[in-house]
Amino acid sequence: MSDNNKKISEQWVPPVSKTDRNYPYNCWWVAGLSSEIEHKLLGRWLLDTPVLLYRTEDGQAVAIEDRCPHRSAPLSKGCLKGDNVQCGYHGFTFSPDGKCVSIPSKEKPPRAAKVRAFPVIEQAPFVWVYVGDPNFIDDVPKPLHLDWYSDPAFASTQGVMDVAANYMLLKENVLDLTHFGYVHAKSFKITDWIDPPTCTTEGDQTSFLQTFKDSPLPGIFATPLGLEPGTPYDRDNYGSFVSPALQIAAVDLIEPKSKTITGRFRVTHAATPIDNENMYYFWVVGRDFGTSEKEIENLKVITEVGFKEDEDIIEAVQRVKSRDPKNKKIKEVSVKTDMAGVQARRIIERWMEKETVE
Amino acid sequence: MSDNNKKISEQWVPPVSKTDRNYPYNCWWVAGLSSEIEHKLLGRWLLDTPVLLYRTEDGQAVAIEDRCPHRSAPLSKGCLKGDNVQCGYHGFTFSPDGKCVSIPSKEKPPRAAKVRAFPVIEQAPFVWVYVGDPNFIDDVPKPLHLDWYSDPAFASTQGVMDVAANYMLLKENVLDLTHFGYVHAKSFKITDWIDPPTCTTEGDQTSFLQTFKDSPLPGIFATPLGLEPGTPYDRDNYGSFVSPALQIAAVDLIEPKSKTITGRFRVTHAATPIDNENMYYFWVVGRDFGTSEKEIENLKVITEVGFKEDEDIIEAVQRVKSRDPKNKKIKEVSVKTDMAGVQARRIIERWMEKETVE
Amino acid sequence: MSDNNKKISEQWVPPVSKTDRNYPYNCWWVAGLSSEIEHKLLGRWLLDTPVLLYRTEDGQAVAIEDRCPHRSAPLSKGCLKGDNVQCGYHGFTFSPDGKCVSIPSKEKPPRAAKVRAFPVIEQAPFVWVYVGDPNFIDDVPKPLHLDWYSDPAFASTQGVMDVAANYMLLKENVLDLTHFGYVHAKSFKITDWIDPPTCTTEGDQTSFLQTFKDSPLPGIFATPLGLEPGTPYDRDNYGSFVSPALQIAAVDLIEPKSKTITGRFRVTHAATPIDNENMYYFWVVGRDFGTSEKEIENLKVITEVGFKEDEDIIEAVQRVKSRDPKNKKIKEVSVKTDMAGVQARRIIERWMEKETVE
Repeated sequence: MSDNNKKISEQWVPPVSKTDRNYPYNCWWVAGLSSEIEHKLLGRWLLDTPVLLYRTEDGQAVAIEDRCPHRSAPLSKGCLKGDNVQCGYHGFTFSPDGKCVSIPSKEKPPRAAKVRAFPVIEQAPFVWVYVGDPNFIDDVPKPLHLDWYSDPAFASTQGVMDVAANYMLLKENVLDLTHFGYVHAKSFKITDWIDPPTCTTEGDQTSFLQTFKDSPLPGIFATPLGLEPGTPYDRDNYGSFVSPALQIAAVDLIEPKSKTITGRFRVTHAATPIDNENMYYFWVVGRDFGTSEKEIENLKVITEVGFKEDEDIIEAVQRVKSRDPKNKKIKEVSVKTDMAGVQARRIIERWMEKETVE
Repeated sequence: MSDNNKKISEQWVPPVSKTDRNYPYNCWWVAGLSSEIEHKLLGRWLLDTPVLLYRTEDGQAVAIEDRCPHRSAPLSKGCLKGDNVQCGYHGFTFSPDGKCVSIPSKEKPPRAAKVRAFPVIEQAPFVWVYVGDPNFIDDVPKPLHLDWYSDPAFASTQGVMDVAANYMLLKENVLDLTHFGYVHAKSFKITDWIDPPTCTTEGDQTSFLQTFKDSPLPGIFATPLGLEPGTPYDRDNYGSFVSPALQIAAVDLIEPKSKTITGRFRVTHAATPIDNENMYYFWVVGRDFGTSEKEIENLKVITEVGFKEDEDIIEAVQRVKSRDPKNKKIKEVSVKTDMAGVQARRIIERWMEKETVE
Repeated sequence: MSDNNKKISEQWVPPVSKTDRNYPYNCWWVAGLSSEIEHKLLGRWLLDTPVLLYRTEDGQAVAIEDRCPHRSAPLSKGCLKGDNVQCGYHGFTFSPDGKCVSIPSKEKPPRAAKVRAFPVIEQAPFVWVYVGDPNFIDDVPKPLHLDWYSDPAFASTQGVMDVAANYMLLKENVLDLTHFGYVHAKSFKITDWIDPPTCTTEGDQTSFLQTFKDSPLPGIFATPLGLEPGTPYDRDNYGSFVSPALQIAAVDLIEPKSKTITGRFRVTHAATPIDNENMYYFWVVGRDFGTSEKEIENLKVITEVGFKEDEDIIEAVQRVKSRDPKNKKIKEVSVKTDMAGVQARRIIERWMEKETVE
């Protein structure tokens, strides 16, 4: 944590009060895909905070407050001057650590003329950012490294979606895969997710495991394996709520006789609140079979179709909730298949309890 | 009232507090035209309540809460399975009485997994619904039956409009017909509505009567009667505020010499709040003269033109009111032609006073 | 002030409370360009007040409340009957002093059936209106007369823009011209505004003066003077915050050897709040050189390009401020070039302190 952040921390207050949100500030969140952050300005609202993202000339990802301290213009409407950002309104110029290094009248910039520089950790495929209370940054878990992503056996595809829904609606979506048979009946065609999975919670992580034995293999797995869709096959489908920011999921495809893993399939879901009713959804899907360029392009197409189906139903849920303020009082009914999702809600509550600054 | 409703009634609270609305919950309201409700799913917000409408295979109209108790998805995004509704998110399935009859994991649905089934009365051309406090349903007047609608001498046409205005703006519109000479000067061309009508209030109904003697007959009445527009003719124009949900109006055309009624013209206006600034406007217009298919098609065209003119001015009024919150304190000035409308406001106030649950 | 206004004044309350706005009601504001006000109805919201503007048959500008006291329809949806306005809903008709002169049923209009007539002062190019507390109208400064506008040596062009930003963002924009080098780098190409100007405050007016000696003359001045862009030249650029409603600015172009003024350039900026996040921006630009029709048309084109650049950045600032309610607590950092703008903020505060009616 830089001195700059220490000073800001003394007065840090969350942009949104705890009672008006269900996301924790003191957490690492994904700000963008590594592939999105270039040597040009990208402005995003993350957790109700204006964040400017760019890469320096030597490739370092930078995240600073996207609001000029002079007259509140978004710096993302300005331009890069080397590694510095020049405001597009009156030319105040900031270095990547948030300090104002020059103003047009050439007088010495006032000390107060600075923007907050947010700590950044890049671990491809993600650029992570911390916009919470600087005093707590050392107390929160570091971002998870995705081992499979750098494994040369794997090929992958990725995307980002701007979804008009609270981020928890996505997290619950990917923790209850019985929705496959309804939301994705015509796309993924995985229709055997019926039984509640085994669910395990350790500390602030909750995981699920579903084992399929001699189950007709859906085409999305069979075809790239060189099998006929419907071939009886074993598979283990498991996943974890890693943090409020990250969900991971995996399918291991297992040849039933030899019990050999013949294919590994990985999905990573990062949901970052824009505000309480909107999120960025960053996803990465990869596998170590069917890895040709053309096969991965097909994987991207089917994934986008499926994730649009999720977006469609999640946004419909959000509209119901947004339109019905008293809905907060209506207790939703949960069943066994919701176990992981219910655990996730409790974990989020524990994260929120730790937020002590109103 | 079903047991299901009795149980919900114990905890019934209105979705919107009494101070934030001017419409009563404990009242039968039109949910749709009979012709709109088919064996497919139709979701509507009525009185700030999500309502799912459909018809069973044997033709019964059903209205249930349009929000799955599991994860709040609108059931209208699901599909019908026979007479049951399957949620499009996780497959929870509900029967027309609101009970959950199956969930995908095949465990027994929890008792709490139910949606409210709203009492329905169908009397063509309308499907009526009661979304208020179940404890009061027996205390409110039943929907009015439109005798003329089933009279074979009559032919009619109908429509539904989604109007961005409080429902009372429509009710006041149809209770002060002096607007004909201004709003409809170029469409209906009824320009002799100038004097205040006779107004009579009995209990919670208010009625008006305007008698025209030897008055030039507007084309909208004259042409289907086979007369020249402008022919001197008698006519009685009368109407009633039947309930907050329903207005009826009638014109009897009377041959001046014989005093014989040669034509009967009927209009029914049902305005149902979507919320405090939006309504559905269901209208039915019929007559026992000029009843050929082509003549009724002409009637539909001219009615739609005229009612669009009403929508245009009513929405302009709403924009003024919505933009000026202090407007609530500004007392509007009423004159004699407003007598029926002013009575309607008082009747609505009495309906509201009976709403005891905050 | 008419009797009509005196009576209203007894009960005058501002449409928006003092704490929810930063604009004073007790001030003359520009309602429109003289060229906009014709013998037809023009409805505008000014200071959260609905205002109807038109010109009588003999050319007098009229401003009355744009809401019928009968059923709140905007009178601007009605029509003119001679110099009177007939409401498009039920035909209530008002004279230019706001009195209801007839209603369709021909009964005598109730005394309460009146709209407020706002005092108007027309001084081309502007029609000024006073919508504040009638009791204070004599205490506020009269609109400034623009002498140069009626000087036959000058030619001018003008425009009106509907800007989605608080009016103060425009005032601060035109009081800190260091933005020229960034916002208008590609349009006006005036890039030598770097140093803080001399700033003088007298009472509730603040003025700035910037003197350029032997500075390369930008094309926008040089070309219509018949000089090569970049010719070394002297120029004095000065301006004033005249009132919350009006800013004036001037450039005198001075031949360096003879010290003769060879060209006078004048800009008038009138910003009128629509509400706290929107304004009308009325601008007039004139000069006494390059006054041919074609040259003035060119001036209009380049001015519109430049002022659109201002609109673009100002609206971006407003979006940041609107999205961040806690922003109010964030103190913006000011430097020497902001001196005139900071003085303007203080002057506005003094105007606001004088508003005693909550």
